[in-house]
Amino acid sequence: MEANIMRSLMGCTSFTPSVLIQKGAIIPRHLCLRTAVSARGSSSDAAMVIDKGKVAVDILHEIRTEVSRMKESIGMVPGLAVLHVGDTKLSKSYWVSCGFVGIRSFVVHLAEDTTEEKTLECVSSFNDDPCVHGILVELPLPTHMDEHKILNAVSIEKDIKGFHPLNIGLLAMRGREPFFLPQTPKACIELLHRNNIEIKGKRAVVIGRSNTFGMPAALLLQREDATVTIIHSKTKNPQDITRQADIIISAVGKPNMVRGSWIKPGAVIVDVGISYVRDRNARYGFRWVGDICYEEACEVASAIITDVGSEGLLESDMLLSNTLTSAKRLHNFL
Amino acid sequence: MEANIMRSLMGCTSFTPSVLIQKGAIIPRHLCLRTAVSARGSSSDAAMVIDKGKVAVDILHEIRTEVSRMKESIGMVPGLAVLHVGDTKLSKSYWVSCGFVGIRSFVVHLAEDTTEEKTLECVSSFNDDPCVHGILVELPLPTHMDEHKILNAVSIEKDIKGFHPLNIGLLAMRGREPFFLPQTPKACIELLHRNNIEIKGKRAVVIGRSNTFGMPAALLLQREDATVTIIHSKTKNPQDITRQADIIISAVGKPNMVRGSWIKPGAVIVDVGISYVRDRNARYGFRWVGDICYEEACEVASAIITDVGSEGLLESDMLLSNTLTSAKRLHNFL
Repeated sequence: MEANIMRSLMGCTSFTPSVLIQKGAIIPRHLCLRTAVSARGSSSDAAMVIDKGKVAVDILHEIRTEVSRMKESIGMVPGLAVLHVGDTKLSKSYWVSCGFVGIRSFVVHLAEDTTEEKTLECVSSFNDDPCVHGILVELPLPTHMDEHKILNAVSIEKDIKGFHPLNIGLLAMRGREPFFLPQTPKACIELLHRNNIEIKGKRAVVIGRSNTFGMPAALLLQREDATVTIIHSKTKNPQDITRQADIIISAVGKPNMVRGSWIKPGAVIVDVGISYVRDRNARYGFRWVGDICYEEACEVASAIITDVGSEGLLESDMLLSNTLTSAKRLHNFL
Repeated sequence: MEANIMRSLMGCTSFTPSVLIQKGAIIPRHLCLRTAVSARGSSSDAAMVIDKGKVAVDILHEIRTEVSRMKESIGMVPGLAVLHVGDTKLSKSYWVSCGFVGIRSFVVHLAEDTTEEKTLECVSSFNDDPCVHGILVELPLPTHMDEHKILNAVSIEKDIKGFHPLNIGLLAMRGREPFFLPQTPKACIELLHRNNIEIKGKRAVVIGRSNTFGMPAALLLQREDATVTIIHSKTKNPQDITRQADIIISAVGKPNMVRGSWIKPGAVIVDVGISYVRDRNARYGFRWVGDICYEEACEVASAIITDVGSEGLLESDMLLSNTLTSAKRLHNFL
């Protein structure tokens, strides 16, 4: 029932409830659209299903509860400002989710030919607005604008994406706290925590070193006391390293790069990479494929979490969660 | 001859010239006070000696040449300000070296009971002074001061230690450039480069994850395209990881922690850890010991660079190098 409510709220057309899978079985992808699947080597010896969609729903409810508590206690609710410039499609998911959890959304749409100066003014007004606690600049911006300049203008205290170098520095340093955890790495860690997958003391391998995922994911795993190795394009024999990992997180966008033979039996796989592959037999002539060869991984890993079919709902939740965190911090609400 | 000049300049009492060592031989520590020693598995099959002291001298000369060129071209020289508060001993090495290379030094000594406000005013005046390009606050500060607050007050453009979180964030991010490389990691990379030890594509292990060394060293190795793993107190079976490394850098301060059996034959060892160990037979009743069991490592590694006996001269050079970098940037001098 809850699934249906969430499905209609978020305009999601592919929600699949959790499915209990036999240990070691290969799971047809259409059955696990937003799911981590399969279990091997778990101590209970029972199949484990990790449902990304379920975690997304749980977190949305938790945010709603907290927003409600904040409203009742101090009469304030968090505010999320979305700045959209140009003719690209505006993502609806944020403000639909905002409505559900009680976060106020402020969406400003500027025309394609808006000047950089005007756009900076808009960012500045969000920075100064006490009702706005999180700012999101939708990308890409029109080509006549300096994207870097616009993003840097967002106040670090409201920069809920968490990509500001100062935030990254605070994330890297022991004993320091970042303002925000970048959304996708934060979603990965939430999924591991909520499924009782231990990180502390484990060998973790992150494949890819992008500023938006690989690097912050490695820093976050390190904060969780994993022993982390980052694999990248210059790494020789990456399979020798992945084979030793208890947790493999991949985000490079190379379809089926990680084969079953790269994985240690019982390892946990988080596949954040997603690629578009032509397929004449698919409904629209293409299909989405992860970095990790799903069928082979299911034969070896204890759990798989894949982005294929997940529609980024959990990542979207993380931005709302960051907006709530920001509002609590700015209003000193515990 | 050069060694003698440098020795007198820097008040160094333990300078030892390079010594050519037979491949695989165990080197008495007193013969290699600031030296990387021993060679195995090198393609030339000849013994290799890495002399940290020689690199320190070379770099000091390079800085002097550049400072001279700057003075002749634009009539400016770099300036290094050192703020020393309280009764602790002031390190002389910076301004003696400054004199040699031609960097202007500004040393301000404040009394132990100076207020935090007064100290901040001093930092602020250095920030505003166009003749100052690098600022160094000597630690520890008196206990009535908030060390963090004082250090954060240093302008990031002149914070030559490079520990500001914004600088660390820029160091972590691909496509971004930090203002400064932290001195000890920078010294390690210089030593590797100047001895033609390839980093790109190599497996590197950093033992220790401190904000001042382990973490920035790992980020720097990553920028050099190594595949990096950080080992820390929660890592299980660290020797299984070090045994796969082409380069091992350790900075934890645990005497002789890394045994010969932890090292892959032919690996390069950089030992930044240094501990004080009681020894009745030693001249002053104690001796300095590295993280890596030196005698055992000499039997396995292709090269060892150790901080034992190095007196931090190379690290001191790196601060002068950062001051020069800052002056060049602030005066747009290429």
